[in-house]
Amino acid sequence: MYDMTIELKAGTGKRLYEQIYEHIRQEIREGRLLAGERLPSARSLAEYLQVSRSTVDTAYEQLLSEGYIESRPCRGYFVCHIEDLFQMEKARGPREQKAVSGASGTAGKHLPGSRVVPGKNAPGTAALASPGEDRSLVCDFSPNEIEMSAFPFNVWMRITKNILSGSNSRLFSQGEPQGEPELRRTICKYLHASRGVECDPEQIIIGAGNDYLLLLLEKILGSPVRIAMENPTYKRAYQILRSFAEIAAVDMDKNGMLADRLEQENADVAYVMPSHQFPTGIVMPIGRRAELLNWANAAENRYLIEDDYDSEFRYRGKPIPSLQASDRHGKVIYIGTFSKAIAPAIRISYMVLPYALLERYQRDCYFYSSTVSRIDQRILNEFIQNGHFERHLNKMRKIYRARHELLLEELQAFKGMFRISGENAGLHLLLTARGKISEEDLLQKAAKQGVRVYGMSDYHIDAAALPRFYRETSTLLVGYGGLNEKQIQEGTGLLKKAWL
Amino acid sequence: MYDMTIELKAGTGKRLYEQIYEHIRQEIREGRLLAGERLPSARSLAEYLQVSRSTVDTAYEQLLSEGYIESRPCRGYFVCHIEDLFQMEKARGPREQKAVSGASGTAGKHLPGSRVVPGKNAPGTAALASPGEDRSLVCDFSPNEIEMSAFPFNVWMRITKNILSGSNSRLFSQGEPQGEPELRRTICKYLHASRGVECDPEQIIIGAGNDYLLLLLEKILGSPVRIAMENPTYKRAYQILRSFAEIAAVDMDKNGMLADRLEQENADVAYVMPSHQFPTGIVMPIGRRAELLNWANAAENRYLIEDDYDSEFRYRGKPIPSLQASDRHGKVIYIGTFSKAIAPAIRISYMVLPYALLERYQRDCYFYSSTVSRIDQRILNEFIQNGHFERHLNKMRKIYRARHELLLEELQAFKGMFRISGENAGLHLLLTARGKISEEDLLQKAAKQGVRVYGMSDYHIDAAALPRFYRETSTLLVGYGGLNEKQIQEGTGLLKKAWL
Repeated sequence: MYDMTIELKAGTGKRLYEQIYEHIRQEIREGRLLAGERLPSARSLAEYLQVSRSTVDTAYEQLLSEGYIESRPCRGYFVCHIEDLFQMEKARGPREQKAVSGASGTAGKHLPGSRVVPGKNAPGTAALASPGEDRSLVCDFSPNEIEMSAFPFNVWMRITKNILSGSNSRLFSQGEPQGEPELRRTICKYLHASRGVECDPEQIIIGAGNDYLLLLLEKILGSPVRIAMENPTYKRAYQILRSFAEIAAVDMDKNGMLADRLEQENADVAYVMPSHQFPTGIVMPIGRRAELLNWANAAENRYLIEDDYDSEFRYRGKPIPSLQASDRHGKVIYIGTFSKAIAPAIRISYMVLPYALLERYQRDCYFYSSTVSRIDQRILNEFIQNGHFERHLNKMRKIYRARHELLLEELQAFKGMFRISGENAGLHLLLTARGKISEEDLLQKAAKQGVRVYGMSDYHIDAAALPRFYRETSTLLVGYGGLNEKQIQEGTGLLKKAWL
Repeated sequence: MYDMTIELKAGTGKRLYEQIYEHIRQEIREGRLLAGERLPSARSLAEYLQVSRSTVDTAYEQLLSEGYIESRPCRGYFVCHIEDLFQMEKARGPREQKAVSGASGTAGKHLPGSRVVPGKNAPGTAALASPGEDRSLVCDFSPNEIEMSAFPFNVWMRITKNILSGSNSRLFSQGEPQGEPELRRTICKYLHASRGVECDPEQIIIGAGNDYLLLLLEKILGSPVRIAMENPTYKRAYQILRSFAEIAAVDMDKNGMLADRLEQENADVAYVMPSHQFPTGIVMPIGRRAELLNWANAAENRYLIEDDYDSEFRYRGKPIPSLQASDRHGKVIYIGTFSKAIAPAIRISYMVLPYALLERYQRDCYFYSSTVSRIDQRILNEFIQNGHFERHLNKMRKIYRARHELLLEELQAFKGMFRISGENAGLHLLLTARGKISEEDLLQKAAKQGVRVYGMSDYHIDAAALPRFYRETSTLLVGYGGLNEKQIQEGTGLLKKAWL
């Protein structure tokens, strides 16, 4: 068996499980651990390294969810086959990326991209008009709600006050089209630290929500494009993208979008949510990510839009790194938002453009003025810089994890009836019926008890092209972001009456 | 001569000149005063009505600038020929308008529209790179700057504080896509009172700046359109509109856009600034407005985009009513902004849609979430409702008028060299060279003294199709919004060195 000596260091700020995880990942990337090779069992590795069993478990889980290893029942963990490992080298710095994209050419056919934070007006809202609601709404398991009561209003207020009482009249004058340089530097650091995103502040465009950024991206990409989207997907992104692009609905398997379909579909751009696909919750493993990047690298004007909408809320292990972090060739347009992690009313999102697209933006779109007030940008900047954002995220993670665990526990009652999934991140769980029962039937029964859950069919963008799995089963989304523990208990209690 | 008995009433809140103006306007509209008829001289009417001469002068000036009457040298004032006076009846209420547009049909070919507040990154910025600048900039007569030092920061701060300390967590949740209902009601009232705009709050869409609203309008209008624009025009609107529409550059005469060209040019939409064309300063008289409305009424999917960007800053007489105020058939898309009147950093603009387009918006674009934070909308709403906006406007008018008069006075030194125009509104004056001297020459000479003025050619969108007047003369824009009186004196002093 492969020699698993790992030098574990104290006092580096890195936790033991991280050191183990990183060591093994490095070994795989550099080819010292080969596809198909078996890893030592968690127990034996823990003994060998003199660490607790759960430390190794956590490291293995992280490798599992990123797709470096797989688990074979009763046999143990094995290294996955990962396409073209060289793609996965440490992403080059953006400067180098610039040189690459500059060399690889410019004009030709362009491509748009997109996405949007699930908000109140998001896909699920269709269910509002669903039939059979003969009791007033008692509990809404919306996958789009977030908890606002824990927001540090006082801190926000204090920062606002400080900024306004500086009576800096320049603050009220027009700012830079891409956004305040300070805030872009702050976002850049944050993205690097939390998501492994490699970029310079000049690549960042700040905009009033993802919808706006997608409209801007339309202008940057230019000529008509064909965009591949996961099916099912986030419906609002679909609605916006199809206003300017042809959409190809692409099947998914358990690893996410089927990369080989992109060539067949003649797509220019693929819109993906690799860290936590909405609504399926799929985390795209490293191998599939490599396939997508290879597809994009194979032609000049291919791009991937990475919608990283809620990766802040992963409850187990380290956050999954972004797809952009693995991009060496300037192929990923990274979009993120503060609407989910801070507050929907804070209309601040950001887009990281590869240098080739940044040039187009500067050439064709420099005249669009910023859509976010400088004051709001300044407030957000201080909120992040002074550590309030991190504290708020940690607080929210704790709150959501508690709700998530309670919901999971309450849903055990339905284990015979549904398979439960999507439990690693995000603010909703999925219930997939084991038997033949229609989605509509389930929704109506819940509605009769005053409970609203959401049907997966709301998120289908091409029902005909839907993966067989989704066609043949009924799946429901049960969100918990906006419900406290008492409400979750009450709601699941009513669901028991409705379904059991 | 026509009987000029006018019943003047005290205590109605209407000033005497307004009563005279309204009476004569009514007489013209209802055909009792006919085209070509001569009005009594101001002196004799003043005597007859027992009012001061200046009261009648002011009334006549208002009628002149709205195009109801014209002045013939040495002969007096005559009633203009106004096409199809019936068009100019009191605009119907929006409810009735709804019925009309509903009846006149729906689908077919759509049309986009547009416009943008002159901001720092506006057209003039091209001059930044102009050659021959061998002295550092001492004075920038930018037509796009506004004065921020008089802004009531304390008031804004106090309102912000009150709103945030309500610790209303709902304020941080996502709002309605069209904007906060309260703010829409407030804008509706303000537009009716100040600009004669007839609409319901439900017709208003609030967005983060005019650029965003134009992008949204693109989606509302749908299929490809051909948009007529004044030439010269506001350049940023041109850049945005041409990203999705074919542009027809249409000549102007002293009354503005030549309406008969619209048919020839096969335009679907015309983008106009009737109250104060940028950059020429032309105020479109009522007759030309009627021609434009008639053109729009003649086919189902024709629209006028009225960009009412700075009509708050008219210094003499009553404000010119909006074009929308004369629209009976739901043909005017009205766009305005708070960036100019309050602060560029306040990214809040609004668009009033005719009902036919509102239906399309609700059908095709309902999913775009609002781009303005609810908190900012709430602050602005209180700022207007509590009378701060009006007070601020009055203060700013006074400041700008003083600057305007000082600049006009200082420019008298150039009277032999330039014709001076554009003095009724806005934040810049125009200097048109009487002799043959190139614009570039003038700009360079100014730049050598450290002064930046702006060339009209920056605003041309189709130099070949330019009105002969502009082709054969050199015209400069001299803005004063961002300069205090000392700076204006210093700047004009340097211009004297440069040009005289």
